[in-house]
Amino acid sequence: MTSMTGTGRADRTVTMREVAERAGVSVTTVSHVVNDKPGARIGAEARARVQQAVADLGYRPNVLAKNLVQGTSAFIGLVADSIATTPFAGQIIRGAQEEAWRHGHVLLVANTEGDEAAERDALGMMLEHKVRGILYSTWNHRATEIPDALAEADHVLVNCYTAGTATRAVVPDEVGGGRTATDLLLAQGHRRIAFVNTTSPSPAREGRLQGYREAHAAVGGEVDEALILDASPEQEGGYAVAEQLLALGVTGVFCHNDRVAMGLYDALRERGLRVPGDMAVVGFDNQEVIAGHLRPPLSTVALPHYELGVRGVRVLLGAEELAPGEQLRVSCPVVARDSIAAR
Amino acid sequence: MTSMTGTGRADRTVTMREVAERAGVSVTTVSHVVNDKPGARIGAEARARVQQAVADLGYRPNVLAKNLVQGTSAFIGLVADSIATTPFAGQIIRGAQEEAWRHGHVLLVANTEGDEAAERDALGMMLEHKVRGILYSTWNHRATEIPDALAEADHVLVNCYTAGTATRAVVPDEVGGGRTATDLLLAQGHRRIAFVNTTSPSPAREGRLQGYREAHAAVGGEVDEALILDASPEQEGGYAVAEQLLALGVTGVFCHNDRVAMGLYDALRERGLRVPGDMAVVGFDNQEVIAGHLRPPLSTVALPHYELGVRGVRVLLGAEELAPGEQLRVSCPVVARDSIAAR
Repeated sequence: MTSMTGTGRADRTVTMREVAERAGVSVTTVSHVVNDKPGARIGAEARARVQQAVADLGYRPNVLAKNLVQGTSAFIGLVADSIATTPFAGQIIRGAQEEAWRHGHVLLVANTEGDEAAERDALGMMLEHKVRGILYSTWNHRATEIPDALAEADHVLVNCYTAGTATRAVVPDEVGGGRTATDLLLAQGHRRIAFVNTTSPSPAREGRLQGYREAHAAVGGEVDEALILDASPEQEGGYAVAEQLLALGVTGVFCHNDRVAMGLYDALRERGLRVPGDMAVVGFDNQEVIAGHLRPPLSTVALPHYELGVRGVRVLLGAEELAPGEQLRVSCPVVARDSIAAR
Repeated sequence: MTSMTGTGRADRTVTMREVAERAGVSVTTVSHVVNDKPGARIGAEARARVQQAVADLGYRPNVLAKNLVQGTSAFIGLVADSIATTPFAGQIIRGAQEEAWRHGHVLLVANTEGDEAAERDALGMMLEHKVRGILYSTWNHRATEIPDALAEADHVLVNCYTAGTATRAVVPDEVGGGRTATDLLLAQGHRRIAFVNTTSPSPAREGRLQGYREAHAAVGGEVDEALILDASPEQEGGYAVAEQLLALGVTGVFCHNDRVAMGLYDALRERGLRVPGDMAVVGFDNQEVIAGHLRPPLSTVALPHYELGVRGVRVLLGAEELAPGEQLRVSCPVVARDSIAAR
């Protein structure tokens, strides 16, 4: 078809005129077929000849031209602040991309690693490309400031939120997730359940604790405040609270996240104790490389990053309603594995 | 400046004409300043007035128009096959983006999850946007086929390669990495060193084994073939080979990756054994959420995903030479932690 250089570049680009000549129609007709123009009066036979010519010649539409005529692009910008350090941004991007493609849009992803200058560059770039709108996301669920440039386009916050503005946000349902995790243990008959909360002030810290309380209330159980502990949200935190948990005589532990559970497993094993026989454990996040491969594999509650990406695009494009200033809370599903046994 | 609706959309876009009026210059002058046109004869004072007007009015250039005039965009396509399941694609993207921005280019990232239809859509989209070129990447280092559409643009393979074609590739130096990992143990006096290789046929399997052999040869040591074991490349694999390693009486183990090392740690701990006192362990990958938080933290060799992204862009843009059909091998650096002690 076209000859290739060593670098793979086609020697020339097929034009709309060449397609028209091959199909025996006008360039206007080709344009209408290629761009799927609604209401264009084109006979089925002519349309088929155009499509055949497109295939035969390997014609690629020039979206740059189409976007310019329309005045906007089919781009949706997505700002991510930590694409390289956690798996969560990747899941948001995957969800957003799949939903964007379903709606004929394309993502312009920019990673900022939280750097303000990079963020300004990213937003400027997106605005220069006349994006349909921008999803502004953070790797962890938190409050955020809206950068000035973000306000120049339609935007939705993903996994973050601002208070007291008209900005719409799509976030995880932390309260529901905390309740789900606690229910896993209550449902197996556990009544002395510790909650190892994060030391980091965050909606996760407040929300999951509220869920823990709601789960107890729903079964008529009392929360023993002494069973609510704080630990840093990583393996070292879980390892460090083990002694205290054992002294408290709890039978089950809801850990702030899977990393904390991994550290707790280490501490229990050092003492010759077993999960779930000696201690039932529930994590949070569903960080698969950990939760799926601890011994035994860890029951946990997933953060719905993929779904956050999907819903963010749907809200942005108006496929789903969300009022100004409202937060859409996406539920956190159970991932049941083997770290809980009946009490 | 511009008034905002609840969704954040600006009511109107500032035009180049408005900038020209405010600065008291022609639209042509504004265009030359904004587009940084080389050789344009514009006085310093007029240039400063344009820049001030741009800032005052919040003018955003229309890159859609500029791209159309040039006939290509400043986009570089990046195809990723697993953005949501491993952290590695994110690191490639981060490196590629940072290098692309340094050269005034913007990434168009598309995630395919290895699906062929998604891949065709991704490449078609990139070609329609007249990308400068395409980086085609895989989450793990492997041989690949070149999709037909990829050949329609300049392209470079990242973390993958094809045999016997003119395609250029940027890949990790597996042999060097295997050698580095083995050297960490040899340097501490270990002489009975096991290598737990992956069962998956791959350049990692062949390359790291070759590096293990080269490291022994360089110190005049003999390789005992009985110390080369195969295990599945995850925690369960490392857990399963522990018995055999102990029976072989090795003092140090080079594990195919950090996940294998994590499984081995579990098995050792179950037997009341300690790392590094009873067994020195080296991993590979530097999957930080594991390697940085095992007890003790794991010494390992990093896969240079970030650097692969950077070098891929440099080769694509011609900032770095690479001959047709050649593979650029990027070195795998040591990440020394606490899992090795002197023999």
